[in-house]
Amino acid sequence: MHTVIRSATKEVLLGHDQKFCIIGERINPTGRRIFQEQLRAGDLSAIERDVAAQVAGGAMILDINMGVPLTDEPDLLGRAITLVQSITDLPICIDSSVVEALEVGLAAYKGRALVNSITAEDDRMAAILPLVKKYDAAVIALPNDHDEIPMEPEKRLALVDKIVRVATTEYGIPLADIVIDPLAMPIGADPKVGRSFFETVYAIRERYGINMTCGAGNNSFGMPGRDELGASFLPMAMAAGLTSAIMDARSPRMVSAVKAADVVMGNDEWGMAWIGDYRSKMAAIKAAAEVVAAR
Amino acid sequence: MHTVIRSATKEVLLGHDQKFCIIGERINPTGRRIFQEQLRAGDLSAIERDVAAQVAGGAMILDINMGVPLTDEPDLLGRAITLVQSITDLPICIDSSVVEALEVGLAAYKGRALVNSITAEDDRMAAILPLVKKYDAAVIALPNDHDEIPMEPEKRLALVDKIVRVATTEYGIPLADIVIDPLAMPIGADPKVGRSFFETVYAIRERYGINMTCGAGNNSFGMPGRDELGASFLPMAMAAGLTSAIMDARSPRMVSAVKAADVVMGNDEWGMAWIGDYRSKMAAIKAAAEVVAAR
Repeated sequence: MHTVIRSATKEVLLGHDQKFCIIGERINPTGRRIFQEQLRAGDLSAIERDVAAQVAGGAMILDINMGVPLTDEPDLLGRAITLVQSITDLPICIDSSVVEALEVGLAAYKGRALVNSITAEDDRMAAILPLVKKYDAAVIALPNDHDEIPMEPEKRLALVDKIVRVATTEYGIPLADIVIDPLAMPIGADPKVGRSFFETVYAIRERYGINMTCGAGNNSFGMPGRDELGASFLPMAMAAGLTSAIMDARSPRMVSAVKAADVVMGNDEWGMAWIGDYRSKMAAIKAAAEVVAAR
Repeated sequence: MHTVIRSATKEVLLGHDQKFCIIGERINPTGRRIFQEQLRAGDLSAIERDVAAQVAGGAMILDINMGVPLTDEPDLLGRAITLVQSITDLPICIDSSVVEALEVGLAAYKGRALVNSITAEDDRMAAILPLVKKYDAAVIALPNDHDEIPMEPEKRLALVDKIVRVATTEYGIPLADIVIDPLAMPIGADPKVGRSFFETVYAIRERYGINMTCGAGNNSFGMPGRDELGASFLPMAMAAGLTSAIMDARSPRMVSAVKAADVVMGNDEWGMAWIGDYRSKMAAIKAAAEVVAAR
């Protein structure tokens, strides 16, 4: 089952038979004080640098979040999306907890967006799924509700059941356009969360065959060596059925781990992309050595 | 279920709730012409260097193979084992296709060895399992028979069924002392082998809960960037249920990937070992910086 995400000129497929989709996460002011101040002052120039870095690192979709306190977030998100689409042809994941911001973002966007996100809460689904339908988008859905983020895989699966039922039957969203984020939790808070995450991913793939994503850094939150932990976590999750992640594409360790896992999963068939990357790397090293030798 | 492997003074447990067991693979003359010539001349000094390198890299068990053509392999293997036990307290995996070599090795070994290996072939089991029983060892078993290495997970599982039945009922080997090597195959020869390997590992864990191992490099055979491929393959296999691998502990990329995966699996509880390694690394960097600064 493929989830189709598009910009005006570029299409990306999420699927269990596709290369893992790297959703670049950096275009987000959360926890970045200077970036927040710039955005508040109407200065969007940092976005261009962040986009360039994510594209260079290998992002295939860009997550755009403009959640700055005390700003007109809908206006800011709309302008950011127009700006990003003027500098890259990568499709966009429109990320906001504010419904009006999602609507302005979807109206400004040229293509078929991924909306980030809904939960299993009735009011969130009622507010956002009509927009997803109206703008023919796909949507990320988190299996938590008002009361809790359940830790047991079977409880999360029950919430996935609810999301799928409501989205498909009440709002006419095709199954292929629902991307579940099974909620990766910090291993530093509970050593069992890794196994239960993989179990949840495996069960969702078995039951629905739909696409899944997660925040790649959540699992390693609070631990040292987060890139190395993510570089093991992501291939493990891919083996269970994860098909994309919202991650910082500036981490060569994580990006390389994902691309190696594509080879192992048979989704980079015969390792064509892997071997191509390797040749480019070797050619660059050779060229650099020749420059040094010629001095 | 735990497989207990011991030297005279050190015990290692293989288990689904244990840290992944790195079986150092380098003490093996296969494909090493100079090492073969040295061994043929009775010079075992290269073994000491190889042991030191595997120990330094983090090996927990050492695989010892002395398969040199045109030598007295039983004698060589017995002497190598005695030598290795004089320089390290790590337990040993005694590796030979020659039954007499395994017997001499087992007789020379002080502790509880891992024997590498049997297949599902009746004559191999009949020759080797009585030795495993006599010397109270554990044994690696490969699900292939005379005719073929089957590619379908269900056929491999049927051969695992046969091995388990014969070993436990006919030779009285406890289930916990059987370590299955589900046979990792080169991804470069067939893009499907990764997925079918993980499926096989998962099914064996579900059915028997026993320990498993594999040659870490088999999957990447013939591809460039083998360390990076192994560093994704191993965590993926661990998520499916692999509990050890025969691998070159001199690869920091693979060793680090395995230790990160231990954290993610919850087998390095609260990341105690991971954080300890990280602190040691940071302290070493700081000490080196101070040396440079003091110049």
